[in-house]
Amino acid sequence: MADKGLLETFENEFPERDYTISIRCPEFTSVCPKTGQPDFGVITIDYTPEAKCVELKSLKFYLQSYRNDGIFYENVTNRIFDDLIESLQPRRLRLLAEYSARGGITTNVEVVHDGSGN
Amino acid sequence: MADKGLLETFENEFPERDYTISIRCPEFTSVCPKTGQPDFGVITIDYTPEAKCVELKSLKFYLQSYRNDGIFYENVTNRIFDDLIESLQPRRLRLLAEYSARGGITTNVEVVHDGSGN
Amino acid sequence: MADKGLLETFENEFPERDYTISIRCPEFTSVCPKTGQPDFGVITIDYTPEAKCVELKSLKFYLQSYRNDGIFYENVTNRIFDDLIESLQPRRLRLLAEYSARGGITTNVEVVHDGSGN
Amino acid sequence: MADKGLLETFENEFPERDYTISIRCPEFTSVCPKTGQPDFGVITIDYTPEAKCVELKSLKFYLQSYRNDGIFYENVTNRIFDDLIESLQPRRLRLLAEYSARGGITTNVEVVHDGSGN
Amino acid sequence: MADKGLLETFENEFPERDYTISIRCPEFTSVCPKTGQPDFGVITIDYTPEAKCVELKSLKFYLQSYRNDGIFYENVTNRIFDDLIESLQPRRLRLLAEYSARGGITTNVEVVHDGSGN
Amino acid sequence: MADKGLLETFENEFPERDYTISIRCPEFTSVCPKTGQPDFGVITIDYTPEAKCVELKSLKFYLQSYRNDGIFYENVTNRIFDDLIESLQPRRLRLLAEYSARGGITTNVEVVHDGSGN
Amino acid sequence: MADKGLLETFENEFPERDYTISIRCPEFTSVCPKTGQPDFGVITIDYTPEAKCVELKSLKFYLQSYRNDGIFYENVTNRIFDDLIESLQPRRLRLLAEYSARGGITTNVEVVHDGSGN
Amino acid sequence: MADKGLLETFENEFPERDYTISIRCPEFTSVCPKTGQPDFGVITIDYTPEAKCVELKSLKFYLQSYRNDGIFYENVTNRIFDDLIESLQPRRLRLLAEYSARGGITTNVEVVHDGSGN
Amino acid sequence: MADKGLLETFENEFPERDYTISIRCPEFTSVCPKTGQPDFGVITIDYTPEAKCVELKSLKFYLQSYRNDGIFYENVTNRIFDDLIESLQPRRLRLLAEYSARGGITTNVEVVHDGSGN
Amino acid sequence: MADKGLLETFENEFPERDYTISIRCPEFTSVCPKTGQPDFGVITIDYTPEAKCVELKSLKFYLQSYRNDGIFYENVTNRIFDDLIESLQPRRLRLLAEYSARGGITTNVEVVHDGSGN
Repeated sequence: MADKGLLETFENEFPERDYTISIRCPEFTSVCPKTGQPDFGVITIDYTPEAKCVELKSLKFYLQSYRNDGIFYENVTNRIFDDLIESLQPRRLRLLAEYSARGGITTNVEVVHDGSGN
Repeated sequence: MADKGLLETFENEFPERDYTISIRCPEFTSVCPKTGQPDFGVITIDYTPEAKCVELKSLKFYLQSYRNDGIFYENVTNRIFDDLIESLQPRRLRLLAEYSARGGITTNVEVVHDGSGN
Repeated sequence: MADKGLLETFENEFPERDYTISIRCPEFTSVCPKTGQPDFGVITIDYTPEAKCVELKSLKFYLQSYRNDGIFYENVTNRIFDDLIESLQPRRLRLLAEYSARGGITTNVEVVHDGSGN
Repeated sequence: MADKGLLETFENEFPERDYTISIRCPEFTSVCPKTGQPDFGVITIDYTPEAKCVELKSLKFYLQSYRNDGIFYENVTNRIFDDLIESLQPRRLRLLAEYSARGGITTNVEVVHDGSGN
Repeated sequence: MADKGLLETFENEFPERDYTISIRCPEFTSVCPKTGQPDFGVITIDYTPEAKCVELKSLKFYLQSYRNDGIFYENVTNRIFDDLIESLQPRRLRLLAEYSARGGITTNVEVVHDGSGN
Repeated sequence: MADKGLLETFENEFPERDYTISIRCPEFTSVCPKTGQPDFGVITIDYTPEAKCVELKSLKFYLQSYRNDGIFYENVTNRIFDDLIESLQPRRLRLLAEYSARGGITTNVEVVHDGSGN
Repeated sequence: MADKGLLETFENEFPERDYTISIRCPEFTSVCPKTGQPDFGVITIDYTPEAKCVELKSLKFYLQSYRNDGIFYENVTNRIFDDLIESLQPRRLRLLAEYSARGGITTNVEVVHDGSGN
Repeated sequence: MADKGLLETFENEFPERDYTISIRCPEFTSVCPKTGQPDFGVITIDYTPEAKCVELKSLKFYLQSYRNDGIFYENVTNRIFDDLIESLQPRRLRLLAEYSARGGITTNVEVVHDGSGN
Repeated sequence: MADKGLLETFENEFPERDYTISIRCPEFTSVCPKTGQPDFGVITIDYTPEAKCVELKSLKFYLQSYRNDGIFYENVTNRIFDDLIESLQPRRLRLLAEYSARGGITTNVEVVHDGSGN
Repeated sequence: MADKGLLETFENEFPERDYTISIRCPEFTSVCPKTGQPDFGVITIDYTPEAKCVELKSLKFYLQSYRNDGIFYENVTNRIFDDLIESLQPRRLRLLAEYSARGGITTNVEVVHDGSGN
């Protein structure tokens, strides 16, 4: 089950600098709560770290923890976003989730944190 | 026949957040009112929900209800736009309709609602 | 309803020559007999004419006549194939139908007539 | 010979709305006045209608009327632009002409009307 | 757990004809037995039916049944192949499994049954 | 009007050698005899010369001579083929004509001369 | 040797209009002054004319005049830029030179004149 | 230093079956013995196993062992080929090495073992 | 070992002009300090020179000096950035490092110096 | 001037093995003897060595020696072919020359030596 405790961070060695880390995870999968069928998607995270960076292996394990969770597109996207914001407290963070076609329809969900509250 | 009553919504669980949902429907078809020939197009909807999100399956049925309607490009696009605005009352919504070539000419129609009236 | 009577032919002016006509129809649509949902596909026809060539506009009308028919992938492909063979009696004919993804799965059906009976 | 009288319009049914119609015509051809050789190009028109929309079939005939005209790239582009402005009196219009390579060199010409005079 | 009993078939209505059905399933996932990490792949099946065709929805459920199985690339591919051969007894069948990169290395496994025993 | 007299040849300096010359002419246009509308296509010629090679500039002028001719796809392709065979008497020649979409349908015509009569 | 005297212009017939001409020359070559080896690049010129347009054939000859010149990437780009500015006195001009890989490294140089001095 | 002892194998569980395993390693690097500069390439291995399959992690380590070796393209390719043949004794094996451009020239080397001696 | 002393510069001959030099190095490799495994990436540098330009061959040698260094993505990117800023003192500089997939995850790091301090 | 004396070879260390070396040279240029204008092309050489391999740097210098030669497409291709055959005496060699468009027409020339005389 999805577990934000899996997310680990390491110290940003260049905290005075404004730079961007972009991470693309094309192997995301969860389960549709209505049909029980697996959903597949690509998660992209672009962020400017403040004091902490996300450790990549822990991010992989965190995203894998959704594998057998039943959860809607909009909600899974917002929940990953919330967990990353809480864990990293970044200057800026953009989360884009691109889901595979269902019923001939493709859906993306994008959430942006621009550092001015939310 | 096109029926906006088919559109269903569900409650946006993150109404305080400004985020974007993008939906791509590559299997849209209606009928040209002049020639009676079928038209084909791709409908893309990008929106920021306020209180409501569009339910994807109902959107599919709604778009399918144009299948045997005779209606011009410009009008079908604006009508889908009007129905989505009325149904979702979104903060922002952009509708792009890309129609297949006819007579060697390709046509797109794009309508944008930016939240400030229309 | 699908009507092979719509298919018209014209005389091949180069019957002594072995040449190939390839036709690609990316706007094919019919209806799934189980779910009532529209299916979409691309029909490709490669053939070597004997005495007759298919008239393109009539081919378009013939393919459009499947628009509201409920019929499975495998059967629609084989039926179009049968109608073309009967109508054209070509030296060779290959029919490829590529259907859009359903449930994350894409299906093609290909039938080949090589002139030696079937 | 190029004839702007061929351009027909129809009434924009959504005059109060700011939306965009994009038209791509990949089959434009005229003749080089210096060499008498045919030139080929792709004409793209993006516009926001005021009271009138261009009728697509008439646009096709209008563009075909350049087929045997000898006229330079820069001039044909500006003349089509002038004719469309005069005929549509649009809020905004952008015309892009992309010509095929000649002598190993490719040329595009782009004219923009932004609604503030010209 | 992977269950070949999930595979359902329907009768081939054109058994006297030699034709090809191609199915592409880009959403296959299982688990590496050594690391416990999920693997992702694309399964492609090309076959010529004899008396039976595979029912697509049942194929999807069958492939989904590998979701939490720990099994190596080479073995999962050969096991799916065996199950399809047993279930369909096709004239010909080709199975291609393309797995996502691991450690910078991409692996495909392809098994072909050409109808002459195996 | 199409004029095969425009085709010029030059002597093949390597007549004892079996090699291939491939020519691609993406700017072919003629007129549909039924509708009077221009057709556009791409002509590809692959040939192995015997004693003569086609001069490229003369080939361009020859293809341009179809510009205002009303002629069907199948016939224009076969006529160009006949003219090239007569003019070049090549060991082998393949002509592929790919026409732009009309009514949502794309058509190619391919004629092959393999040196053994026709 | 590079000779800016080769550049010819013609009168801009629409001097009151702000429009853009884009020219792409993928066949540029000069010589590296250090190694004597040929360099290859693609030159792109986007400009808004004032009173004069560059004549395309003369531009081709001008760029060809660098063929046997030994000159560094940065300098050849800036020199072409200077010659075009002097010759055309355009409202705006952007020059992009994209050079082929050397030692596994690709280099582009871009110079922009925005009309406000330089 | 390149060490074929790094290659490990595991038992082929389907030895009676003729199937193909394809492995693509886009991160190969060694050093040019003449210039001391690093070379980069993509190694592709397609093979039909007899009794043994190559273990993927060991293959990665084996290919990494060339990282600081000075060796020519042709020789490194043939040496990897020899080591794989010796280690796997496969029914068939094809090795393709695609090296990055040097001096504007790209080189591939391909070796094929078809099982009939070599 | 990474050695910024390898970076050489040459005098910018157009210091009064604001122009951009873009350099793409697709053959960067270093070593992961945790696993000892090689990492691969593409380094892109876009900069506007002040008094100095980077000499391309020296840049290649400088980037090669990371070949056997154990260093994390974030740190190697920031260190190259620091060395370039110190060496070139450019008006503007953007460094983008795109690393190959590890564990199914792709990572980019981008640092921008816009001339106003850092 | 083109000089086959520039071609150098080195000894094939695996003469008993049948393998293929593919070389792609995208930076070939010569001069049209009729117009004096430069031509550009891509030369691809695929060969199976007998006793000798072509040295890549010498091949580059050899191809560069055509830079200011006036020579037709068909002849330059056959001459390079003759020089390579004479210099390498390969088991098999295929030469493909792909020339850039002139007058809207693209030309390739391909010569194949299959080891059985010519």
